[in-house]
Amino acid sequence: MTAGTLYGIGTGPGDPELITRKAWRLIEAARVIAYPAPDTGESFARSIAAAAISPDAVEIPMIVPMRTGRDPAQTIYDTAAKKIAAHLDAGEDVVVLCEGDPLFYGSFMYLLARLKDDYETRIVPGVTSLTACAAAHARPLAARNDIMTILPGPLADDDLTAQIKRADAVAIMKVGRHMPRLKALFARLGHLDAALYVGHASLAHQLQVPLAEAPDDAPYFSMILLYKGDDPWIR
Amino acid sequence: MTAGTLYGIGTGPGDPELITRKAWRLIEAARVIAYPAPDTGESFARSIAAAAISPDAVEIPMIVPMRTGRDPAQTIYDTAAKKIAAHLDAGEDVVVLCEGDPLFYGSFMYLLARLKDDYETRIVPGVTSLTACAAAHARPLAARNDIMTILPGPLADDDLTAQIKRADAVAIMKVGRHMPRLKALFARLGHLDAALYVGHASLAHQLQVPLAEAPDDAPYFSMILLYKGDDPWIR
Repeated sequence: MTAGTLYGIGTGPGDPELITRKAWRLIEAARVIAYPAPDTGESFARSIAAAAISPDAVEIPMIVPMRTGRDPAQTIYDTAAKKIAAHLDAGEDVVVLCEGDPLFYGSFMYLLARLKDDYETRIVPGVTSLTACAAAHARPLAARNDIMTILPGPLADDDLTAQIKRADAVAIMKVGRHMPRLKALFARLGHLDAALYVGHASLAHQLQVPLAEAPDDAPYFSMILLYKGDDPWIR
Repeated sequence: MTAGTLYGIGTGPGDPELITRKAWRLIEAARVIAYPAPDTGESFARSIAAAAISPDAVEIPMIVPMRTGRDPAQTIYDTAAKKIAAHLDAGEDVVVLCEGDPLFYGSFMYLLARLKDDYETRIVPGVTSLTACAAAHARPLAARNDIMTILPGPLADDDLTAQIKRADAVAIMKVGRHMPRLKALFARLGHLDAALYVGHASLAHQLQVPLAEAPDDAPYFSMILLYKGDDPWIR
């Protein structure tokens, strides 16, 4: 028997219409679907793709503790990989839903690491929160020969400062509870007025405001954008 | 009369199936469609979306000289903006097709700069070449608290070297004719074996190989990826 194929599929930033046609087709056809889910509520990745999921599909939620904010115990992925491998061994394809893009700051890599050597693997890239946040403000992320740096919010102030100084365009991901510290840092660097904030990009409750007006209790899925290069509106 | 809306729509990296459902719907419904085109052949953005374009749509190609490799004369965008504005003034929506994402290293900003103050503008983000190239190799771009830096290939060796040294994950865009110099640079930095190359991501003639095996005459739409962070396959 031929083993099934593992699909890592990006569901995009949140709006179900920002799922690609390829991802939608594969999700609709999927008989086995896995996705990360917090221990506190529903899976964001599953909620984005919900309308495409067949009621007959076997679902494999990977329950990841959210409260720590750290990488979860890798035993969760050991267990999930074993369940997924059993389906692949039985000749069934398995679709793994990933918020945004599977390979851009996601947890899909933990499954990929466990399964890539033994099974055929295909990745369907998705729209990232990066470009969805730029779209929310209708402002260019980067242009021409700009240097663009993507920085996770949990990094220390010194690391963030050094990187921000050397880049033309900056995106701070995973803002969440780091917002008060990040706002203070941007103010010290003289960038508070130019920086932009986006929370819940592409969803009905999206909030796009200047960073100075951003809420101190920002959600985990939120971003700060800063453009420092030559005038992006140059004519 | 109410003026029309300007839509900047990402068509994704090349595979028409990587267009989002939202972009596809808007392109199908569009009565006026603009797109960049080289003076040497067909428009890549239009070719990606071709199957969604109505035969009745008015098309506004923006012919951009490709041979210089520099920003084209801005008069091209002045002329295109005037044509588009005439349709918007007549109450018609105008869809502008953009390879990848409209706000990620694209030329859409030149139109946006000319039209954003006078017309309602909406952006539909698209899958970028960045994640499409990672998908081609099925390797993580960046993870956890990695610093990811995106660098245009035309930058000078000193600038590239300084940035590559400080990042965990690196993507070099717009490789094209800079390939021999970039390959030599990666070799000097000791990264030739770890770096990956992708040309024509997501298309039938996609080429994904280690950088050492990449062609010296790389296409403009090609990329080098390097992961230097902690083992992305960490369990």
